Amino acid sequence: MAQHNVSVEDTLKVLVENKKYSTVKDILVTMNPSDIAMIFDELSEDQLPIMFRLLPKALAADTFVEMEPDNQELLIKGFSDTELKQVLDELYVDDAADIVEEMPANVVSRILMHVTPDRRREINEILQFPENSAGSIMTTEFISLAPNMTVLEAFQKIRDTGVDKETIYTCYVLSRFNRILGLVSAKDLMLAKDLNVTVDTLMTTNVITVSTMMDQEEVAKQMSKYNFLALPVVDSDNRMVGIITFDDAMDVMEEEATEDITIMSAQTPYEKSYIRTSPWELFKHRIPWLMLLMISATFTGLIITSFEKALSQLVILTAFIPMLMDTGGNSGSQSSVTVIRAISLGELDFKDLGKVLLKEFTTALMCGLALGLVCFGKVIVVDGIIFGNMAEAVNYSFPVVAIVVSITMSLTVVMAKMIGCTLPLVAKKLGFDPAVMASPFITTIVDALSLLVYLKIATTVLF
Amino acid sequence: MAQHNVSVEDTLKVLVENKKYSTVKDILVTMNPSDIAMIFDELSEDQLPIMFRLLPKALAADTFVEMEPDNQELLIKGFSDTELKQVLDELYVDDAADIVEEMPANVVSRILMHVTPDRRREINEILQFPENSAGSIMTTEFISLAPNMTVLEAFQKIRDTGVDKETIYTCYVLSRFNRILGLVSAKDLMLAKDLNVTVDTLMTTNVITVSTMMDQEEVAKQMSKYNFLALPVVDSDNRMVGIITFDDAMDVMEEEATEDITIMSAQTPYEKSYIRTSPWELFKHRIPWLMLLMISATFTGLIITSFEKALSQLVILTAFIPMLMDTGGNSGSQSSVTVIRAISLGELDFKDLGKVLLKEFTTALMCGLALGLVCFGKVIVVDGIIFGNMAEAVNYSFPVVAIVVSITMSLTVVMAKMIGCTLPLVAKKLGFDPAVMASPFITTIVDALSLLVYLKIATTVLF
Repeated sequence: MAQHNVSVEDTLKVLVENKKYSTVKDILVTMNPSDIAMIFDELSEDQLPIMFRLLPKALAADTFVEMEPDNQELLIKGFSDTELKQVLDELYVDDAADIVEEMPANVVSRILMHVTPDRRREINEILQFPENSAGSIMTTEFISLAPNMTVLEAFQKIRDTGVDKETIYTCYVLSRFNRILGLVSAKDLMLAKDLNVTVDTLMTTNVITVSTMMDQEEVAKQMSKYNFLALPVVDSDNRMVGIITFDDAMDVMEEEATEDITIMSAQTPYEKSYIRTSPWELFKHRIPWLMLLMISATFTGLIITSFEKALSQLVILTAFIPMLMDTGGNSGSQSSVTVIRAISLGELDFKDLGKVLLKEFTTALMCGLALGLVCFGKVIVVDGIIFGNMAEAVNYSFPVVAIVVSITMSLTVVMAKMIGCTLPLVAKKLGFDPAVMASPFITTIVDALSLLVYLKIATTVLF
Repeated sequence: MAQHNVSVEDTLKVLVENKKYSTVKDILVTMNPSDIAMIFDELSEDQLPIMFRLLPKALAADTFVEMEPDNQELLIKGFSDTELKQVLDELYVDDAADIVEEMPANVVSRILMHVTPDRRREINEILQFPENSAGSIMTTEFISLAPNMTVLEAFQKIRDTGVDKETIYTCYVLSRFNRILGLVSAKDLMLAKDLNVTVDTLMTTNVITVSTMMDQEEVAKQMSKYNFLALPVVDSDNRMVGIITFDDAMDVMEEEATEDITIMSAQTPYEKSYIRTSPWELFKHRIPWLMLLMISATFTGLIITSFEKALSQLVILTAFIPMLMDTGGNSGSQSSVTVIRAISLGELDFKDLGKVLLKEFTTALMCGLALGLVCFGKVIVVDGIIFGNMAEAVNYSFPVVAIVVSITMSLTVVMAKMIGCTLPLVAKKLGFDPAVMASPFITTIVDALSLLVYLKIATTVLF
């Protein structure tokens, strides 16, 4: 539990400062690798290698995997060849491939020099796949069985080879050409009444597979839909080449949600956690979008200058511009963000456009009507009576101004929601990331349109 | 694979229309429950019960769990008592509890009448926990072992009781008072060299537990951090009462990300998928926020009317209001959304406020400077020279207007980012949901502030 870990952390800090390393070691071996990694990531460059060497071999490797790339690099650079080999031998091949991907070239060549040729081949196999593909996150270590093995023989094979496999709970029954014939779970094997039946009599033949080139987001979706512990990965010839386990899928889900949220707020996605991203990196991820959106606002400015005369005669019109723009932006982003998320979850596709438009139009009418009515009352009572603008607009009937503002409000809300729900689906259809079509983008479009409608109606009615 | 399912779906539709039920059945039994449920959810009220009855008992229950609540209700209402009992007996207790929670009272009493007393007690135990707590999503079915059991005896116990357990891969070693002594995985048992050693010699004693009252979001975070298949749930007396499995944690992660995204776009979270939410429900989730934010924009309007004289003399000032407001809003939401996500992922807490402020301030200075400079150039070249506003502002030096706009731009960006990063952390500290402090909320505050700064500087410099 979180509260518990905090106090251990503090204790460890004091112990390290007092160089009580054997006590530190006694504490560390009782802890979970993820928690140790969190503590290690906070250590200074001098302390980290000392602390890391306190860990027993297997725990050291498990902790290593969970650490931040810059600290992994620091450790590798300080490792003797023997130490490096020890850690590498304990890693699962997909974790080793992940680490290799993050390291600079000189560290990579040192790593590849110290692994077995078999391991090197496997790492390279994973590295050949494009980033974010199923192939790039799979592990090539899984348990394969022959269809004519008995349950007893299957147990024996698991016992002989299972220690190095990331999961032994799903075993794949493969043909001689590595095509998947079926799968048996460890549960099937353990609950089998007769140890002498062959695995092909127990296996499930309806196996869901993913291809090496499938996007990792799609893989995570499949995993979450079917609740599997692992999904088998097949190559273009339909031969099984690896598995993706649920924990990797969980990481992908988290990563993809973060990416969507980041894009929706007009930033390019970060590779590192917020706390490890420098201001300069934050700047680079944010400034292009801010610039683009700032320049786009030129159109909105042009609309205003083209109605300059009306606005100078009746400045009260200007006072309602922020309210109209903001409500339009908010209405539009409600629709766009909801649709973007539904697309991400695989609930919506371009073919649903008609259904979505109808639903959003009905909602927009209700929202538009309600907001328009309340807006009319608010303008009359708050802006007119309470703050006395009624008097200033004496040349024009103030209630007419209120009507113009309210009608614009209703129209803006309907327009905003229509645009908000359409653009993400169109983006998806055209192969762009729908998340780009979130609040900031929608706001810019809706601002210009709502101003145009507002000032057009105002000049027609009032002048 | 998705492409594959689509064609099966179409084939099934044709077969159902032609009433070829035995062929339909042959196809359905080869399919995964999740896929069947997706197809069933699209069926008409008449077709659904017919199709459902084609499924064999176990597959029927697995499919039932994956279906939408309204269709589950429809089916239950049409079930005979025997059918209802058959489906209920096949369900895991946490799934049964989920279904009970979704059903109207008369259906609930019918369900509880047809389960065994033991089952009824277990369902009620789960239902007593508050929504979104660990207790409410746990299952009470898990494998417990006594410390002095041998590996062989453990295997025997798994074989005897395992069929009904959601996972048999993590077994908990409990004291006589149901306190957790340790855990052994099925892997430990299967790889054990000697079947006569007792499980307490194999078990891991460092067990991470969650309490029944822990928020489900926190549970999912723990699961994703430690990559466990299941987490044990303990009550206030530290007795083990259930487990939460990885697939439930995955659902929670997805649900919580959707909830955050929904709140961030100024809506109250939906309970159903977008496609199943009616326009009236969408309206109810959206209108309170739109109203609130619309009313809040009154302040921005007041600021404008209080500078009415300046604005009527120099309407070109009005033309830059949307650009300043939008860029401020975008800058603020970049920071707020990033911080909100980092809080959700457990990376940031109120104690990091200083660190966050420093990082955002540095970033904001860079963004503000860059945007201010480009803004100056843009105003002079685009608005001044190309669109000829330079001439209209002849009483005032147009470059001075450009300087005022650019300085406001820089200040707005810095203010917006400071507010954007602070409010979510403060909300967290005060016990509110940080996601509320996203774009719409920040935009409203930043709009008012940036206008105030803009018009204050403008009137001081230009008049």
